[in-house]
Amino acid sequence: MNFSINKEVLLSQLIVSQKALSIKTPNPALKGVKLDVQPDHIVVTTSNSDIAIQVVLKHDSLNVSETGEALVPGKYFIELVKKLSGLKVEISLGADNMMRVESDHSDATLNLMELEDFPHVEFTTLENPVIIPARTFKSLIRQTAFATSTVENRPILTGVSLNLSGDQLTAIATDSYRLSKKWINIPGASFEEQNIVIPGRSLEELIKILDNSEENIELHIMNNKVLFVIDGILFQSRLLEGRYPETDKLIPQSFANEIVFNKEQLQQAIDRASLFTPRDGNNVYVRLTLREDMLVEITSNSQEIGSVKEEITPVQNVVGTPFKLAFKNRYISEALRVFHSSEVKLSFTGEIKPFIITSEYDKDMIQLVLPVRTD
Amino acid sequence: MNFSINKEVLLSQLIVSQKALSIKTPNPALKGVKLDVQPDHIVVTTSNSDIAIQVVLKHDSLNVSETGEALVPGKYFIELVKKLSGLKVEISLGADNMMRVESDHSDATLNLMELEDFPHVEFTTLENPVIIPARTFKSLIRQTAFATSTVENRPILTGVSLNLSGDQLTAIATDSYRLSKKWINIPGASFEEQNIVIPGRSLEELIKILDNSEENIELHIMNNKVLFVIDGILFQSRLLEGRYPETDKLIPQSFANEIVFNKEQLQQAIDRASLFTPRDGNNVYVRLTLREDMLVEITSNSQEIGSVKEEITPVQNVVGTPFKLAFKNRYISEALRVFHSSEVKLSFTGEIKPFIITSEYDKDMIQLVLPVRTD
Repeated sequence: MNFSINKEVLLSQLIVSQKALSIKTPNPALKGVKLDVQPDHIVVTTSNSDIAIQVVLKHDSLNVSETGEALVPGKYFIELVKKLSGLKVEISLGADNMMRVESDHSDATLNLMELEDFPHVEFTTLENPVIIPARTFKSLIRQTAFATSTVENRPILTGVSLNLSGDQLTAIATDSYRLSKKWINIPGASFEEQNIVIPGRSLEELIKILDNSEENIELHIMNNKVLFVIDGILFQSRLLEGRYPETDKLIPQSFANEIVFNKEQLQQAIDRASLFTPRDGNNVYVRLTLREDMLVEITSNSQEIGSVKEEITPVQNVVGTPFKLAFKNRYISEALRVFHSSEVKLSFTGEIKPFIITSEYDKDMIQLVLPVRTD
Repeated sequence: MNFSINKEVLLSQLIVSQKALSIKTPNPALKGVKLDVQPDHIVVTTSNSDIAIQVVLKHDSLNVSETGEALVPGKYFIELVKKLSGLKVEISLGADNMMRVESDHSDATLNLMELEDFPHVEFTTLENPVIIPARTFKSLIRQTAFATSTVENRPILTGVSLNLSGDQLTAIATDSYRLSKKWINIPGASFEEQNIVIPGRSLEELIKILDNSEENIELHIMNNKVLFVIDGILFQSRLLEGRYPETDKLIPQSFANEIVFNKEQLQQAIDRASLFTPRDGNNVYVRLTLREDMLVEITSNSQEIGSVKEEITPVQNVVGTPFKLAFKNRYISEALRVFHSSEVKLSFTGEIKPFIITSEYDKDMIQLVLPVRTD
């Protein structure tokens, strides 16, 4: 192996590959970046237990004088290339099982890893993948994946459920205390009915790569894995096994109270109330009260510190009966953050029943939160 | 106590006071902010075991309807004021040993703390303080304090030694592996000979307050404390007791080799070499070699990862005999950072003897580093 290439071009692709590098792993080979140098391109592959990424690197500046393969310590290789000051980098295999990296007046060697230990990854494409604008897919994920569970006692809830049906793609995530649901219609599409559950962490890495891409993303859905193709990058994730819980019946359809808030005002009131919060186990919660005069109070009260009372005049007149409930402030804050509109509607069914957040400007999305039971 | 004031004005002074708030302390009163409301001003006092700060708050927007004193939980009070959205804040003492904070539609109460538990702090001023431009004092500290020791086995080394003599002010800091020395001359000054040692942490908080102040700073030096006065802020620090070690004889006066580097180039070479570094206990070190051809190599070599070799052409021709030594990379990086000039001179006396870094453009400053002994 012996090639030279523009440093920035190599670096930009390595940064994509890095998303699938293992930091802690019982298999050291998964800390490696696999380089496969061909006469006119380089295939860069990384893989961890959830995802595998393959990038094909073609560029005018690439000059291959000898083809070959190598597995190199990913973290150190990428850090080194980041810090090089030259415009061009020359990479070659040396004696003693080393890879040599030269640029400007820097001359580094990296110990090679055992190529045979790197898993064989099959990146499988289908003839008719699902095709969506990357931007649309990114917001679908951004508006749901945050609600996945981070604890492993119900592994299926650490994933985002993706359902395809007709021309509609629906994403659902829940940690059983709150739920996010977003659906999009793809004009002209006609999907076979399919349900898959993709690990939330995989999707978080994927949307970092999507960035502000204006391209389309392809979804190649297989039995136990899904391959995303975007801008020449192959990003493959395992799927979670098991049945995703039925969530539709959890979402209330009729409401006792509907209150429209200025989102910013509600967020700030919750932020302030969150400063002095009582704790119910791990739950830091604040209270919401609809008063007799149809104004809303957000309150918190900590014996040790003090209390906060925030008065909010809803954007539209409220009709209904007074009530109060308590919620984990982080759940609301995280839900409010994914709305683009300046107004949101909270719809309540009862003091210990789930309430939902919607907005007429953020179409086809429901955020649901379960109140906290307090004394 | 009952007053109202512009929120931003109050906040800017509280942020100064915060620098002397204790986070962890066996004495809970030191977590408090003391407010002393007078007819036309408010005195805000905070104190921890090292420093005490007093700010006198006068402003057109201040409207006092009742004077009084209170001690309130500092962290929560400041966080609350930060998050308030109103322009004006109203503060009053309520029943039940509470302080009430009202702004816009927010209405918060904070439990008061026991005023009697707050230490009585005497802020003592002298008739003839030392007066220096704040900007000059700030760079004196910035260029030395980083070299103080952070371990407590020799407490005196956690401080910066300040010496006044004639028209000269000298600051020295050392952790016994490296040393920083900077001196300034104050035209027209005639200081009595004095030596004090100020805790490095106190000075780090002080220079945050100095920011980009164009004012003068006053130093009121007493037996066991020093009071800094700047922009109406009183900032008092305890002094460290004990004799600061004699350091002048540590600084070599004649050199076997002097090498002038482009600072950026040297820094980048060390950065890259630091990626693959061997460890000698806690010391991560790299090697510097003056070769036969009078070029410099910065190298590192890790059995597990690989090696880096950086070749540097010194800015000026080097005369002397080849040598090599090893140093802790962080010591050089931190020293290089406080030079303003683009070129620095490293002057060596031997492979295991201290070397110094100077620059003809950063006058009156010496950075000294002790090499690491390696096999």
